[in-house]
Amino acid sequence: MPNNLKLIEIAQTLTPELSTTKVYPVQLVEMVPEQDAFQGWSVKTVDTVENLLHRTFVKNDSFVLDFGDHQVGYLNLSLMPVGSPPDAPLRLKLTFGEMPCEIGESFDDYQGWLSRSWLQDEIINVDVLPAQIRLPRRYCFRYLKIEVLDTSRKYSIAFPDIHVTAVTSGDASVIKPLPACLAEDLRVMDNIAIKTLQDCMQTVFEDGPKRDRRLWIGDLRLQAQANYLTFQNADLVKRCLYLFGGMTLKNGEVSACVFEKPHPLADDTLLYDYSLFFVATLYDYFEATGDWDTLKDLWQIALDQLKLAADRLDERGIVRDDTTWWCFIDWHDDLNKQASAQAVLIYALKRGERLARKLQQDEVAAWIDVTIKLASAAAVTHLWDAEQKVFISGAERQVSWASQVWMVLAEVLDTASHAELLRSLFRNPPAIGMTTPYMYHHLIEALILSGLKDMALEQMRAYWGEMVKDGADCFWELYNPSDKRLSPYGSNLINSYCHAWSCTPTYFIRKYFLE
Amino acid sequence: MPNNLKLIEIAQTLTPELSTTKVYPVQLVEMVPEQDAFQGWSVKTVDTVENLLHRTFVKNDSFVLDFGDHQVGYLNLSLMPVGSPPDAPLRLKLTFGEMPCEIGESFDDYQGWLSRSWLQDEIINVDVLPAQIRLPRRYCFRYLKIEVLDTSRKYSIAFPDIHVTAVTSGDASVIKPLPACLAEDLRVMDNIAIKTLQDCMQTVFEDGPKRDRRLWIGDLRLQAQANYLTFQNADLVKRCLYLFGGMTLKNGEVSACVFEKPHPLADDTLLYDYSLFFVATLYDYFEATGDWDTLKDLWQIALDQLKLAADRLDERGIVRDDTTWWCFIDWHDDLNKQASAQAVLIYALKRGERLARKLQQDEVAAWIDVTIKLASAAAVTHLWDAEQKVFISGAERQVSWASQVWMVLAEVLDTASHAELLRSLFRNPPAIGMTTPYMYHHLIEALILSGLKDMALEQMRAYWGEMVKDGADCFWELYNPSDKRLSPYGSNLINSYCHAWSCTPTYFIRKYFLE
Repeated sequence: MPNNLKLIEIAQTLTPELSTTKVYPVQLVEMVPEQDAFQGWSVKTVDTVENLLHRTFVKNDSFVLDFGDHQVGYLNLSLMPVGSPPDAPLRLKLTFGEMPCEIGESFDDYQGWLSRSWLQDEIINVDVLPAQIRLPRRYCFRYLKIEVLDTSRKYSIAFPDIHVTAVTSGDASVIKPLPACLAEDLRVMDNIAIKTLQDCMQTVFEDGPKRDRRLWIGDLRLQAQANYLTFQNADLVKRCLYLFGGMTLKNGEVSACVFEKPHPLADDTLLYDYSLFFVATLYDYFEATGDWDTLKDLWQIALDQLKLAADRLDERGIVRDDTTWWCFIDWHDDLNKQASAQAVLIYALKRGERLARKLQQDEVAAWIDVTIKLASAAAVTHLWDAEQKVFISGAERQVSWASQVWMVLAEVLDTASHAELLRSLFRNPPAIGMTTPYMYHHLIEALILSGLKDMALEQMRAYWGEMVKDGADCFWELYNPSDKRLSPYGSNLINSYCHAWSCTPTYFIRKYFLE
Repeated sequence: MPNNLKLIEIAQTLTPELSTTKVYPVQLVEMVPEQDAFQGWSVKTVDTVENLLHRTFVKNDSFVLDFGDHQVGYLNLSLMPVGSPPDAPLRLKLTFGEMPCEIGESFDDYQGWLSRSWLQDEIINVDVLPAQIRLPRRYCFRYLKIEVLDTSRKYSIAFPDIHVTAVTSGDASVIKPLPACLAEDLRVMDNIAIKTLQDCMQTVFEDGPKRDRRLWIGDLRLQAQANYLTFQNADLVKRCLYLFGGMTLKNGEVSACVFEKPHPLADDTLLYDYSLFFVATLYDYFEATGDWDTLKDLWQIALDQLKLAADRLDERGIVRDDTTWWCFIDWHDDLNKQASAQAVLIYALKRGERLARKLQQDEVAAWIDVTIKLASAAAVTHLWDAEQKVFISGAERQVSWASQVWMVLAEVLDTASHAELLRSLFRNPPAIGMTTPYMYHHLIEALILSGLKDMALEQMRAYWGEMVKDGADCFWELYNPSDKRLSPYGSNLINSYCHAWSCTPTYFIRKYFLE
C-alpha cells in the first residue's frame, strides 16, 4: 500500500517544537548492593555537587551524579584541564542509568536478547581542552557515571559544569492542580504518572524515551487518554494519528509502530489488536476535540481496520487463532490471545459504529452493528464457559485474566455480570496472570466500568503504589510486585523505566477519582 | 613573559588551507601472528573490497580494511540497514592502526606510560539508519578494523561506502622528480620520507599525526630542511617560527613545543637544545628564503636563546650539568647530555653569528664570536679525552655516540679529525648508542660534513633501508634494527609510525646524493 503523502505532510506540519529545561545534578551518590532494595541496589549519598566542582580527576577516577529525577535530554559537559597544557586526549566513559541497576551492574555482562545498543554508555575522546561538549545523542537517565579512562601524566581534569538540556513537548503549565483533599499517595502517583507521560512526549508520543523511542499505537492510545486530562496537547495526538494513517501496510493495515527518522516509515510489525486501536484512538480524539476534519481524513482508514479484522472471524464468528497472526495484549509467553482479540474487535467495532453514525454513514453503521452482534453472540456462545463462569481462549480453553478483562471492556455481558466475573478473578486467580502495566491499566478500566471503583483504587495502590515504594521516579515498562527482577528480555538492565503505557494513573485519578 | 600578540597574529594569518583527497580501501586483510615478521605480525589478504560491498554484518562480525598506504584524515562511513526497519541503534567499534600490531593486539592490555587515549579506537552508537557518517576526529592509519558490536535481531548492516578524506598542507605537485639513474632503494626511501613529511604537514609541522600532533622545534628544524628541498612550503615554516617566537616562557626561552588549539599556547616543556634550535631553524629559513622581514621580526628572540643558553656555561666555559635542566638530544635513559648540549650551543652560536653579521649587528656578532671561541676551547680542554680520543660527557666522563656526533656538527675540531673520530666510533662503538631516527639523522649529517658520504649512505641504508624492509609506509618515530619492539613508552602500540624527525632521507638524497 503506497504511503498517503498528503496525510504524512499534515503529520509533519504538526511536528512540535520541544521546550528545553536546564537541569543540574543534585548530589553525588554510589550504588550499594543491598538485598532488600529494589533489584538489589540502594543509592547512597556520598558528596555534594558543590564539592565536585572543586575536585580534579585522573586516570581510573570515577563518580556518579544523581540528577534528582528522571531526565530525557542532552548532556552538556565542561571539561577543564588542570596542570600542564593537555598533551594527550582526554578519554572518558559515560554510563547513563534510569535506575541504580544500570550503574551498579556492568553492561559487559549483558546477555539479554534485545540489542545491547540500548544500554546507554559512551566512550568519548576529547582532543582539545578546555572544551564545552554537548553530546549529540539524547539520553534518558537519572544517574550518570563518569569514569576518567585517561588524562596524561601532565594534567588532571575538572568538571566545572555538568548539566542536562531536558526536552519535551508536554507543557506542564496547562495541567490543572489536584484538589487539596486528594489522598497524598494518589497525588504522588499522579505526579509520577505525569512525569512519565511528559518524558515520553517528544516529537511523537514515544513508548519509552530510553527504549525503543518509537510511536506504538498501543502506547499512543493510553497516552492520548492521559494527555486529554493533563497536557491537552491534541495536536500531538493528531500528528501521531496522521503518521499511522499515512503509512499503512500492504493490505491497508495500520502498522503497530512507526519510525520518524530518517523519514516517516511504518514498521513491518503487524498486531491484530494494535491495528484496531487506530479506531479507538481516533474515536477518543474526536470525543476530546470535535475535530471533524481529522475524523473525515482518517475515517476510511479506521473503517478498513474494522473490515480487515472482521475478515479474521471464522464461520462461527470467532477470531481465528492459528500461526499466521500476532496479537499483543500483554507480554506473556503462555497467554492465548484469541478471546482477548475477539473482545478488542468488539471494543473497536463499538467505537467505529459511533463514528459512522456521527458521519451519517448509516449503511456502514448498520454493517458494523451486525458485526458487533455476530461477534458478541459468538463470544458468549463459543468462548463463555458456563460451568466455570469465565471466558476461555484457544483450542486449549485457556483461562486468563486478560480474556476476562477484555471481554468486560468490550461490554459483552451486562454490568452486573462483569462485576461478578471480575470479583471471581480475585477469589480464584487464573494461572495465566498479568505482566505489564499496560495489562493492569485494562484491569483498572474494567473494574471501574463494572462499578468496582474501590477495587480499582486498591489495585492501583497495589501496583503503581508499590512501584512508588520501590523508588520509581517514572512508571516502568514492566513490574511484578512479586518478581522484581522481571524482564521479558533476559535482563532488567534493558527494561524501560519510563514507559508510556504505565502513565495512566493520572488518567484514572483525574477521570474517576476527583469526585 | 607575555605573549607577543603581533607575532601570533602573523602566524595565524599563515594558517594553511588543507588539501583533501578521497582515499578508498584497497583490500580486506587479517593480521596473522608470525614470529619472523616485524613486531610479530604479518598482513594476509583475505578478500576484495568489491566483495565487502555485497556483504551484510550482524552482531560480533568484524573485518579489517587496508587503505594501501598511510593516511591522515577523516573517516566517512555509509551505513545501510538490511532487513526490517532498524529497531535499535547500531553499535560499532572502530580501531585504527598505522601498523599491524595495533590491529593484532588488544588495546585493553596496554600498560605503557603514555596516555592510552592516543590509541585510536572509538565505540559509536548510531540511532538513525541509513546514515552517512563522518567521524569528527582526525585519525592516522593504514588499517581499520570494524567490529559490529550489535545491530538487532531485525536487521543486519552493510557498508556500501567507506573512505577517508585525507588532509595535508604539503602539495606534492611541486616536488621535483628524481633523476632516472638514482638507485631504486634510494628512490623508495625518498618516496617514503616525502610521504612521512607530507602526512606531518598540517596546519603546522606536526611531530607525528597520530601522536602527539604537536609542533616541536626539534622536529620542525628537520622538517623545514626536508621541506625546502621538496614541498617548498616556506610559509608553513614561517608560521611555525612565529608561533614559537610569539609565545616564549617566563625568562624568554623558546618552548620545546606549542599547541595550536583551542588557541595558540606554549607548552611548559623547556629543553636546552630545543630552545637553541630556534636560532638554527631561523638561520635555515633565511638561507632558504632571504626573507628579511621575518629575520628582523624574530632575531631578538633568537639572540635571547643564545644569551640564555650561554648563561649556563660554568667558569670553565662548559654547560653546567645538574638537576635543574632538561636537554633532549635522544631518547636514551642513560645518555649524559652535557657534551651534546655544549656542541648544540656552539652549533647555534655559529648560525647566530652569521645572522648577526647579515643584520650588521657587529657588537652582537663579536660577543657571539667570543662565546663560540670560549665554548669551543672549553670543549677541547675539558671534554676531549686525548687518551681515548673521544669527547666525554658529565661527571662520569661518559662516552656516547651522541657526544661525538654533536661535536662534529659543531665543528669543534677540523674535518680530518672529525672523520677520524667518526670512523673510530664504528671500530669501537660506545656502549651508549643511538635510539631515534632523530639521532641517526645527526649521525648521517655529521658523516657527510666530515667527507664520509659513502659511510653516510651505508648508514642510511642500514637504518631507514631496514625500516623499508620491515614494511614501513612512513618512517617511524623509533627504530632499532636489533630490537624491533623497542619503545621508550612501555608499548610499541603507542609509538608513532609516521614521525617528522624520521623524514630526512629525502633531505639527504636531494641535497647530497643527486650529483
